[in-house]
Formats: sequence, structure tokens, C-alpha cells
Amino acid sequence: MKIPKERLEKYRNLKREFSEEEYINIHPIQRGGVLTEEAMKALIEFGDGYSVCDFCPPKEARLDMITRPPIRDFYKDLAKFLGMDYVRVVTRCREAIFIAFKMLSEPNDYVIIDSNAHYSTYLAAELSGLRIKEVPNSGYPEFKVNLEAYIDKIEEVKKEKGKLPSAILLTHVDYLYGNLNDAKIVGKIAKDYNIPFILNCAYSAGVMPINGKELGADIITGSGHKSWAASAPTGIIAINESLKEKILARSKISGDITKREFKAKEVALLGCTVMGAPLITLMASFPKIVERVEKWEEEINKIRYLVSELERIEGFKQLGIRPKLHTLTHMESESFYKVSINHKRKGFFLYEELKERKIVGIQPGLTKHFKFNTYGLTWEQIKYIRDAFFDIARKYNVNIK
Amino acid sequence: MKIPKERLEKYRNLKREFSEEEYINIHPIQRGGVLTEEAMKALIEFGDGYSVCDFCPPKEARLDMITRPPIRDFYKDLAKFLGMDYVRVVTRCREAIFIAFKMLSEPNDYVIIDSNAHYSTYLAAELSGLRIKEVPNSGYPEFKVNLEAYIDKIEEVKKEKGKLPSAILLTHVDYLYGNLNDAKIVGKIAKDYNIPFILNCAYSAGVMPINGKELGADIITGSGHKSWAASAPTGIIAINESLKEKILARSKISGDITKREFKAKEVALLGCTVMGAPLITLMASFPKIVERVEKWEEEINKIRYLVSELERIEGFKQLGIRPKLHTLTHMESESFYKVSINHKRKGFFLYEELKERKIVGIQPGLTKHFKFNTYGLTWEQIKYIRDAFFDIARKYNVNIK
Repeated sequence: MKIPKERLEKYRNLKREFSEEEYINIHPIQRGGVLTEEAMKALIEFGDGYSVCDFCPPKEARLDMITRPPIRDFYKDLAKFLGMDYVRVVTRCREAIFIAFKMLSEPNDYVIIDSNAHYSTYLAAELSGLRIKEVPNSGYPEFKVNLEAYIDKIEEVKKEKGKLPSAILLTHVDYLYGNLNDAKIVGKIAKDYNIPFILNCAYSAGVMPINGKELGADIITGSGHKSWAASAPTGIIAINESLKEKILARSKISGDITKREFKAKEVALLGCTVMGAPLITLMASFPKIVERVEKWEEEINKIRYLVSELERIEGFKQLGIRPKLHTLTHMESESFYKVSINHKRKGFFLYEELKERKIVGIQPGLTKHFKFNTYGLTWEQIKYIRDAFFDIARKYNVNIK
Repeated sequence: MKIPKERLEKYRNLKREFSEEEYINIHPIQRGGVLTEEAMKALIEFGDGYSVCDFCPPKEARLDMITRPPIRDFYKDLAKFLGMDYVRVVTRCREAIFIAFKMLSEPNDYVIIDSNAHYSTYLAAELSGLRIKEVPNSGYPEFKVNLEAYIDKIEEVKKEKGKLPSAILLTHVDYLYGNLNDAKIVGKIAKDYNIPFILNCAYSAGVMPINGKELGADIITGSGHKSWAASAPTGIIAINESLKEKILARSKISGDITKREFKAKEVALLGCTVMGAPLITLMASFPKIVERVEKWEEEINKIRYLVSELERIEGFKQLGIRPKLHTLTHMESESFYKVSINHKRKGFFLYEELKERKIVGIQPGLTKHFKFNTYGLTWEQIKYIRDAFFDIARKYNVNIK
């Protein structure tokens, strides 16, 4: 149907309101997905739809078989980098989790997940027709997942269902507190029970070193746009040999009349996945990713410093595990909340004060709690953020120790 | 794990081997996905992962609720443009079909599909645990789907299963012959039986005018990177009011310990879908798309002209419905096949001869049959392609009428 011309005006000249050049972006989910210069160049080169399909091999026409550009090699290098046997790039980390859940289970089975898991983990279970049991965390203020309790949950399922859960999933680093979990503990439990272990590395793989085999993971899921300097949407599913046949099961369907078959296609992927721009950004950033994970310790030094500084402000308290093991941080800030109550802009004052100081990424409206991420910022930027918060505290007569 | 530096070299400076400036690309799946200038600009602006999430509304944190950039409005305009009630942008057209199949059926149900459907339609059924019945086509040389036979297939399922199929799907324009089907016929049948009708418009919506309501479609699926001048991966699912609750069912799962719930999230989408670059290209190209579908008739004039010219070459015969109703074309070329038998480069000679003449997109190795697409080419380019084929024919002593 016809769309009036004036309704189309707003799609012309679409601009992002904050540029990386002008603002320091501390958005909790955006730091790891800022493109490298190499990725930006590749994006322009491969922007067109199906741009990577120029040399799709006629016989095994599948994304992971393409050698120009070197997708086939990339999948191998990526698997190796993660300490796993096979990799497929899928459209989102959540799709990777859905694929794992779906291909490892029967409807109504149980999967066990940690209670800090992202909402999409719950949805992936729901779409697969599964039931979940959550592994508890320690609650305020650390919210630390009780990893040993995976055993209790497995036993609970065994008792209730007469069979083991189809899979157990641990969120390596969660999105709420940025808590890093000791995956080896869960890897050991999974091995003892012989249950597939899915480690969701959306916030870890791509920014810190990950070795799936060492951690005891059977499947690793990751997010390109979250942690690999790639455009959205890109997910990663890395698989160990033992689960390859299940997760990457080939198509068996055939046409009742035509007898058409598609035996080279991987069912859970619906064939090809990311056929263009975002995959290319993932590949173009890869050399930088390989380098940057080695600098993780320094990233931790920076966030620990910033937390210790911000906690000098009265009423500021970092939630989650202490000291920080990841750059994603959840701050409680009672004092700023008190300021907001009488401020004419209410909870928006903090966002606006920061924006005036060229800092963006904290959710507009929040003051009592807020999340931010410092990944990849320079020491200079870290200190600038500290100063900005001090400045705002002083402006509203909040004490600084 | 460590990746040796020399293995990383190949990811530096990734280049597409053929640029749109230098070559005429007649790749069967690529013509409709060439970015507009506006989309390329927007891509650079929104390349970073999660670039569209700067102003995610805290209360209903969902991609389709974002107003800066104007995603919420875009979904409304896009639905209207397709003559449907609701739209969601998903990661691929095949995901849209999977979502439709999955949410409309119980495992082991039947869906009915046309026998020219894309492989991913079969895989979407397989992943949903469904069985299929194919609607036959007329075979060589037209391969025209017998649309009235949807009735026979519905009756067959009814008899065999004691219940109706969960859905019927028609590929509006198929990828094999570029045949355009009269969707209204199937829409009428679907309505008579009260079965949801999915019209896969991967090759039609975005290049030609589509009005879902007029065609009797309950769901329309589309592909941004195939036909909307967008980067991959982007799919479209457009839904009529009557199926909204089923397809966009909200999450009902809750944590057994935490009682966490995610009632705003749409289960089949796993929450948010395309959180960046490709969605923005779809939006930025939209004003041009609205214009370009009005010029469809001229596109048909061009392909009909080219087909009539190429058929002057001995042994050239266009397969599929005559005269052409779509720019995707399947050519039989017996004479060139004969040339290839004695050519030192065998079947690759045609690809190489064309490439020398700055034409790419025909699958390397094919001569007996090949597919191409002229969508969006100028008359001048059409004539240039004709001349190139004539030139090659003459070189190998193939007669031209």
C-alpha cells in the first residue's frame, strides 16, 4: 500500500545521536561491540545483502564452506581460539542457546540454569518447550551463584522426572552484576553426571581469554555485537566433537512428491545464517580480538580503580562480587537517589548531568542503581569519568571521602 | 587459545572481489539486496553492535518500542506498506517461516508447501517437527505450481490425520525459475478451509507491489538482504490481526526460585532480533523501496526484452512461466554446454568469458543451465549483457537468429 511521502521523511539521513568521537560511551552492553577500524572498512566493503556469497561452492553450498572471503578458515580459527572443536556463526547468542537447548532435549525436559541468566536464556528454554530449574545466588549484595547447588538441582530433576536434565547452562559473566563464575566447578559437575554443559560467554568470550576445554564446556555461546567488536546480529556457537552430530545434525526431510533432499544443510541453523555484513565485521576484528583478550588484566585494574574511587562518594556501593572480575558494573547510589527525589528532572538528572559532561550510556531515569561498562576505555577516560561523578556529587552536596 | 600471527593475516583488509562500480552483477540472489546510498551512509553511522539500543525504553525494553531511531514507526509503516496489520523484523526470512510454522502447529502436524519452495522452507518445517506435503508443479519447461491442488493436499491431510494442516505456504516467487504465483487463488482456498496462509515473499516484497490483504495472506514473510536493499541478515514477518496473539505470544515462563518473568518479551523472537546495522539499512532504504516497487512494470519489460534477445542464440531457452513475470530467470543453454565439453576450462568457460566482459554473478562451472537476475539494471546494462552473450556465442561459432 502507499505510504504518504511525509511519513518517509524520518528515515532519511538516520544519525546516531552520540558518536564515539564526541562522547564517552559507558553503556553496559555496548563497550565490547564497538567496531574496530578494520571492521568498519570491511563493513563498507561488504554492506550489500549476500555480499559474502559471490563464491558459494556449488556442491556444498553452505556459509561455512566459503573460502573467498575466508569464512571456512575463520570458523576453524575461531573454534581453536575458544579451545573448542567446531564453530558456527549464528544470528544471536540467544539463537545459539536456543539451538543447543532444542537439539539436546525432548519437549518437557528440564534444563538447569543459573538465576542470574539473561532473559533470553529463559525464552530459549520456553521456545524449546522445556522446563527450567534455577540455581540460586547469594542475594544482596554479592548475588553470587552457588555453583555447587547445580548438584542439588540435578538431583531434584532426577527425583522428579526419573531422568537427568537435558543440559545445564551457566552464564559465565552475567548481565546484572558482571559476576564472573568459576566455570570449572560446573564443568566438573556436568562431567560427573554426563550432562551437556553449555557455557554462555556473551560477556566473556571476545574480551577475556576463554579455553572451553579447560573450563569443561561442551558448548560455548557468544555474542559478536556484545564482545567481539562486530555489528549486530552475530552469535557464536562453539561445540565439542562429542556433541557435533547432535547440534549440527544434517537435514533428513524429503519432499513427498519431488523427493528433494538437503543433506548438506544443518537443520538447527536453517541452512545459512549471517550472510553478510556482521559476519565480515567479526572476521575483520578477529586479529584485534586475539590481541585484546591478552590485555584483560589491565581492564580489571581500570574498573577496580574506578569502583574504589566512585565508592568514595557517600552512598555509592558496588554490587556483585568484590573485587571486580569483569568490567560490567552495577552501582548502588543511595545518595544520588536522594538528590533525584527533589530534583525537578527527578531520576533523569544523573543522565543529563553526565551527558552535559559528554558521558553517555547510563540508562536515562536511573539513579538508585545503575550499570555501566568500562571495557576498552583508556586510563584517561576512566579518570575523566571519576571526575565527572565527583563533580556531580559536589554540585548536589553529596560528600566525597 | 593462541592463534599464530600468520594465520591472522588473511583477515586483514578483507575485500570483495567485484565492486558494483566495476562489474555488472547479475547474481540471481543479489540484485534486490544492493544497498542504496542512503543505506550505506546509515550503515557507517550504526555499524557498532547494539547501535540502535541507545534509547531502549526502560519499561518495555523491546526493539519494536524504540523511537530513536524511529523503529516503532518503521514497523507500523512497513506493515501498512505490505497491507498487513503488524510487522516484526527478524534475522532471516527462513526464521520468519520457522516462527510461523512453530507457533501455528503441534509437532507431527502437517504443513502444505509448494514444490518450488526454497530449501529453507523444508528445514523450517523439519526444525518445527512438522511433516510436509508438496503441491506439484507442471514440470519441464514451465514448472508451474498447480495452485488448485492445494485443495487435494488439504483433503489428503484431513483424511490421513483426521485434522487439517496447521498452515499452508506458497512461495510467491520461487528461486528456481522466478515464477510468480497467483496468490489470491491459494488465499481463497485457505479462507474456505480456515487454515492460516503464509505467503513467502522473499523475492517479491521490496521489489514489486504487495498487498497482503488483497492476496488473502495471513502471514507474509520477506527478506531484507534479498529484496529490500538491506544488509544481511534481515527477515520480515508481517502478520494479520487474527494471528497476532499466536505468532507474537508473550513469554509465560517464570523462574522457580527467583520468580523472574518476562511478560513483555515475544517468545518466538527470543526477545530482540536485529539490534543494529542491517535493520538500519532496511529503514534507510525504505523511502527508495516505496518508490521502486511502482516501477516494477519497467523491470518486467527489461527482462522480457533480454530473454527474447538471448533466445535468438541457438539452444537458449528460458525455463519457467512465459512470458516472464519476474526478473529472476532460469536459462537453458544447450549450445553453450556443447561448447564446454571441448573447452579446456570446461564449464568454467562461460563464467570466465563473462567476467572478462565485466559481468559477474553466474555460478562458476554452469553452462547447461544458469540463473541470473536483472533487477535494477539500466536498459544500457541490459543491452550490454545481450551483446556480451552474442559476442561469446560468435566466438564459439554458436548461431544467432
